[in-house]
Amino acid sequence: MKVKNQIILALDVEDKDEAYKILDQTTPYLNTIKIGYPITLALGPQIIQQIKDDYNVQIIADFKVADIDATNEKIVNTTLNWGADSIIVHGFTGDDSVLAAKNMAEKNNKEIFLLTEMSHPGADRFLKPVAEEIAQMGVDMGIKNYVAPATKTDRLAKIREIVGDEAFIISPGVGVQGGKIQDTLKYADAAIIGRSIYNSDNPQQTLEDLINMI
Amino acid sequence: MKVKNQIILALDVEDKDEAYKILDQTTPYLNTIKIGYPITLALGPQIIQQIKDDYNVQIIADFKVADIDATNEKIVNTTLNWGADSIIVHGFTGDDSVLAAKNMAEKNNKEIFLLTEMSHPGADRFLKPVAEEIAQMGVDMGIKNYVAPATKTDRLAKIREIVGDEAFIISPGVGVQGGKIQDTLKYADAAIIGRSIYNSDNPQQTLEDLINMI
Repeated sequence: MKVKNQIILALDVEDKDEAYKILDQTTPYLNTIKIGYPITLALGPQIIQQIKDDYNVQIIADFKVADIDATNEKIVNTTLNWGADSIIVHGFTGDDSVLAAKNMAEKNNKEIFLLTEMSHPGADRFLKPVAEEIAQMGVDMGIKNYVAPATKTDRLAKIREIVGDEAFIISPGVGVQGGKIQDTLKYADAAIIGRSIYNSDNPQQTLEDLINMI
Repeated sequence: MKVKNQIILALDVEDKDEAYKILDQTTPYLNTIKIGYPITLALGPQIIQQIKDDYNVQIIADFKVADIDATNEKIVNTTLNWGADSIIVHGFTGDDSVLAAKNMAEKNNKEIFLLTEMSHPGADRFLKPVAEEIAQMGVDMGIKNYVAPATKTDRLAKIREIVGDEAFIISPGVGVQGGKIQDTLKYADAAIIGRSIYNSDNPQQTLEDLINMI
């Protein structure tokens, strides 16, 4: 995946007018948008293709897929058929669930992102202790794309060590959650940024400042 | 939640005609339907209210919500606003994520189900070792409804021990996946059954047989 300016916009809003206003302001600088279930459930899954058509961007569906293998397969297939270029899948459900998602993405000539760890405090309890094992499971399965948190640079560095230099890592948590873009991009290939761009008084200036820092 | 005949239909299909054919055959016996992301993404989230209107049933949205707190909150709110009566939430993401989901459900005068463990083989690796701790976390947070697997009766019994007799447990895995309804209902309040009902030659006879076994 080629991410322009190494920045992915996290479009965490649910209103179409608001989403389109943000996209108007940011897509001169960005070509990759991460959308989640909130906007997809609020506006319906056809919003994926609409955004692609209207802004000529690539879409990562951040659906944190976390079901049994047969269901993961269906979720991945339907989401990619709605136009998503990739989809984020949880690793803690185990290898059969992840493999089903990976195989279905490949049938669609696309790839999944494997989520190894999350950026919120609650993730420390059950996810953090197994994050390295999840990353290693991904490597053993031949997965090339990973999500690892920018809020914890030491953890991000560790995940990079496990998945190797050839892997593609995207990293949420820069900005409002506390991660610094320069630190993050030492280990990640792209930073996922949302609120600190589109909640700023001047999103374009904020983006230019971020790009200048890289 | 009052589940007629202690059986919840898992409507794991993606085609509307097929879904409605199954609902025609089963809703004389059942009043509770579990739907997941496959049908919701394939047909759009308005399918939730359509099924409720057309069949006068209650809907559990099996969305296995597994995001950070702020996103869990949005997913739960939007899903309940589309008409779902309850929503299934993963515990693996930690207490802040689960609490956000619980609080948002309560704002809507509804309740979540907490998923403690899953029925597929892959769940043994990362989920099973922490399932009891997840159930205890739910109890500490005052959660009343749980999902625990029918394929592993010893595990289901253990979860019942932790959550107590007053809690409401629903249990997937009866039928095709190997769970027996009589064993399951010793510990669970309702069994979630899908394929072994609607893939049978005579779904109504299968349902009557299951109900006679209870």
